[in-house]
Amino acid sequence: MVPPQLGTLGPGSQTYLHSYTAPSTDNLTVSTSPRLTCATVWGALRGLETFSQLIYNEGEESSLFINKTTIIDEPRFRYRGIMLDTARHFLPMPILLKNLDAMAYNKFNVFHWHIVDDQSFPYESVVFPSLSEKGAYSGKLIYTQEDIRHVIQYARLRGIRVVPEFDTPGHTQSWGEAFKSLLTPCWVDGKEGVAKPLFHGAYEIFDPSRESTFDFLQKFIGEVVEVFPDQYLHLGMDESYPSCWKSSPNITAFMKENNITTYVQLMQYYVTRVLDIVQSTNKSYVIWQDPIEEGTKASPDTIVEVWRGNSTVPWQNYMSEVSKHGYKTILASCWYLNYISYGQDWKKYYQCEPLNFTGTAEQYDNVIGGEVCMFAEYIDGTNLLSRLWPRASAVAERLWSRRDVKDVESAKFRLDQQRCRMLKRGIPAQPILDGYCGDYEFGFPGSNGIYETSEKRPRTPPAASSAAGVFLSLLSVTFISCFCFMV
Amino acid sequence: MVPPQLGTLGPGSQTYLHSYTAPSTDNLTVSTSPRLTCATVWGALRGLETFSQLIYNEGEESSLFINKTTIIDEPRFRYRGIMLDTARHFLPMPILLKNLDAMAYNKFNVFHWHIVDDQSFPYESVVFPSLSEKGAYSGKLIYTQEDIRHVIQYARLRGIRVVPEFDTPGHTQSWGEAFKSLLTPCWVDGKEGVAKPLFHGAYEIFDPSRESTFDFLQKFIGEVVEVFPDQYLHLGMDESYPSCWKSSPNITAFMKENNITTYVQLMQYYVTRVLDIVQSTNKSYVIWQDPIEEGTKASPDTIVEVWRGNSTVPWQNYMSEVSKHGYKTILASCWYLNYISYGQDWKKYYQCEPLNFTGTAEQYDNVIGGEVCMFAEYIDGTNLLSRLWPRASAVAERLWSRRDVKDVESAKFRLDQQRCRMLKRGIPAQPILDGYCGDYEFGFPGSNGIYETSEKRPRTPPAASSAAGVFLSLLSVTFISCFCFMV
Repeated sequence: MVPPQLGTLGPGSQTYLHSYTAPSTDNLTVSTSPRLTCATVWGALRGLETFSQLIYNEGEESSLFINKTTIIDEPRFRYRGIMLDTARHFLPMPILLKNLDAMAYNKFNVFHWHIVDDQSFPYESVVFPSLSEKGAYSGKLIYTQEDIRHVIQYARLRGIRVVPEFDTPGHTQSWGEAFKSLLTPCWVDGKEGVAKPLFHGAYEIFDPSRESTFDFLQKFIGEVVEVFPDQYLHLGMDESYPSCWKSSPNITAFMKENNITTYVQLMQYYVTRVLDIVQSTNKSYVIWQDPIEEGTKASPDTIVEVWRGNSTVPWQNYMSEVSKHGYKTILASCWYLNYISYGQDWKKYYQCEPLNFTGTAEQYDNVIGGEVCMFAEYIDGTNLLSRLWPRASAVAERLWSRRDVKDVESAKFRLDQQRCRMLKRGIPAQPILDGYCGDYEFGFPGSNGIYETSEKRPRTPPAASSAAGVFLSLLSVTFISCFCFMV
Repeated sequence: MVPPQLGTLGPGSQTYLHSYTAPSTDNLTVSTSPRLTCATVWGALRGLETFSQLIYNEGEESSLFINKTTIIDEPRFRYRGIMLDTARHFLPMPILLKNLDAMAYNKFNVFHWHIVDDQSFPYESVVFPSLSEKGAYSGKLIYTQEDIRHVIQYARLRGIRVVPEFDTPGHTQSWGEAFKSLLTPCWVDGKEGVAKPLFHGAYEIFDPSRESTFDFLQKFIGEVVEVFPDQYLHLGMDESYPSCWKSSPNITAFMKENNITTYVQLMQYYVTRVLDIVQSTNKSYVIWQDPIEEGTKASPDTIVEVWRGNSTVPWQNYMSEVSKHGYKTILASCWYLNYISYGQDWKKYYQCEPLNFTGTAEQYDNVIGGEVCMFAEYIDGTNLLSRLWPRASAVAERLWSRRDVKDVESAKFRLDQQRCRMLKRGIPAQPILDGYCGDYEFGFPGSNGIYETSEKRPRTPPAASSAAGVFLSLLSVTFISCFCFMV
């Protein structure tokens, strides 16, 4: 086993980590002297996970086995993301870090951090500290600059990019706690700042008519692109409903003055101004699908995240449309894991195929991956990890393995084994089948402290690091397909 | 505040705890010298919970307030149960104990322990140790006699009875691992011990044709009634489908010999023999509704648990039927909390009213309560507590408070507060609304160790025990209804 050169993880080697360029191919050979070769350290991390998944026991936990095999492997999609929402409910640092562990165990490589929203603003800004002072739920429910650096570094060591989302112009009520003038006052019966139930709040969407809005964003985005080293910044831009703008005489006057005749054009004006700000920082951006649907032009390297889709207009239509524009496209619609239902719902996540839409070869090439979303209306530290895992592992296999790896019945047992592996590594992954995971159950004395970071807690050695001690069976030489579970 | 006389909790005072006789009335007065009076120590425990629920803060966590009030209180129903299933998945001791804490915080008073089933036999028997040696998932996934004594004592100190369920004649495959002869060999094409998919397993239901089955049960039940001090033993007796019996020539011969002409009669023969065994020990029993529906006679003090109900035959029909026979009746049908759906499903649990069926005053009197069921196909230590709480709290209010306390909108905020209280007392109760619970989130450093028992871990002092330090507001004298949340 060639150890991964973690020591070489300097800034120069971050190209693959911080963007979505093509990954290197792993070559893992298990024999009496196992060997793992790969062009980058990130490939080595994935290869070690593969190795850990090859180890098994037969009843007695004291003996571990591995079969001779050779695996040549690479992921099918370059963007394999998980989105967490820390605005509806705050997620404490130990939970975020634990989730990064689980992501690495499942070869996810992007943590999309939906960090703020209407409900709260837990991001501690350096240039505008009052944003979290006034917009966070409480002074203790914030992510400090130090917290964020820690998350980024913790993720990086696990081969995971951190893409923060600062969603505008809608979903921004919490920004208004400190900077009310960012938000358009909504009007009712000649009075400003009044809510109209079912139509709009009192203040709910950025005000594109004031130049100060863009001055603010210039400074704020200037900070954010320094804090988060990833090449990409997620700008949201979903669900910007115009009811409030429509109610405002100021907005009407502004539109007239600038020859803007529709609210779609007004939205395009806002979006274009913000995209220009980001481009001036030499960063690229991810946006939800909405502006593209409405005809806004974005820069060619934009990643567009498809999240809509229902029985009337399936997500396939949107994938087809977005990828046709030439943007890099990721699919989220079928992987909203915050929605729950009884039983083995992982099967439907597993069966969702991102390329299952009508398109050209070029369109399919534009699809760079997909993302699990966990909006947090009913999620916090109490249930995030058990609800996400192992359901997200089903998506992990879909995004990593070959398209024809799709048999649900055989996936069931791989997924069950993967959940047991996670359980033994401290992730409270919930069961999908009756049964048990050897002599270990979550909640045993000794499994305590799962909500501490893995740096601090005494932990079971991960399977990979116990590799040196495993017994290499010479009885069977089994070729294990490189497309088996998450390999 | 008169301290509860916990020291007097001797065997002589267990009548109320170990059976379902009428509870005493609490009288709680909060003034400059608060006073709690009640006839039994169990009432004092509930009164202290009530007291803890009256304490609030206004923004700053360092100051706690309570208003002057007088509350005269008693529960509406005498049986307020939670059923946990430790057979589909094993639940470690720390999880069981933590759940007893949560039950006490919500004034539940019966832990119905569905301890064994087809899948595994984690109960360690003294007279038949091989039952768990061979029938448990593993040697570490068992409840020892010491564990069980600990659970019973832990529950008792919290005013909770422990009613174990040993379900027969169906749901018994795991018994057969050690004692194959207990199970009827099922027949296919002239061969015994063969499964017929969709019809029957190879061995799946007790064999009523052998006298040795009842000899075994005599000894086993003799042990169980000694181990569990509660007056009641749950005997299961649900879902005893006759396919296997029908396939067996031995059963056919036995029926002929004994003039048993139908499988319902055969089931009645089995049930009657087992009920006689339990009655000979001077214990009483709980059974699922099935034998009563099929016309079996049980002893008059039997508790019958209604679990069936669907859109064709609603649970109301079964409640009406069972209560008409004069048995003590409890409702579970509408409270299967193992079933999950997205959003605020607690509302439907809250709105289920046990007396909402057509019946006479006598029938209504027969309804002594209800029970939350958590069958564990998809439940183990990773998700039990967050999935059960605070959804079960909605049922707690239904079973404790007056029937006309049923407004969902006001209950929503009480329930949210109650979840915050639980969170601060170490229960990972999941959120039901956007927001937060003061400066505290589950997963913070310092909230670690939740899976240790509360005896061992350093814990936030429960609100009740910090009562002496609260500031009694003299500004407002508010009468708080004795029917507010779980009061």
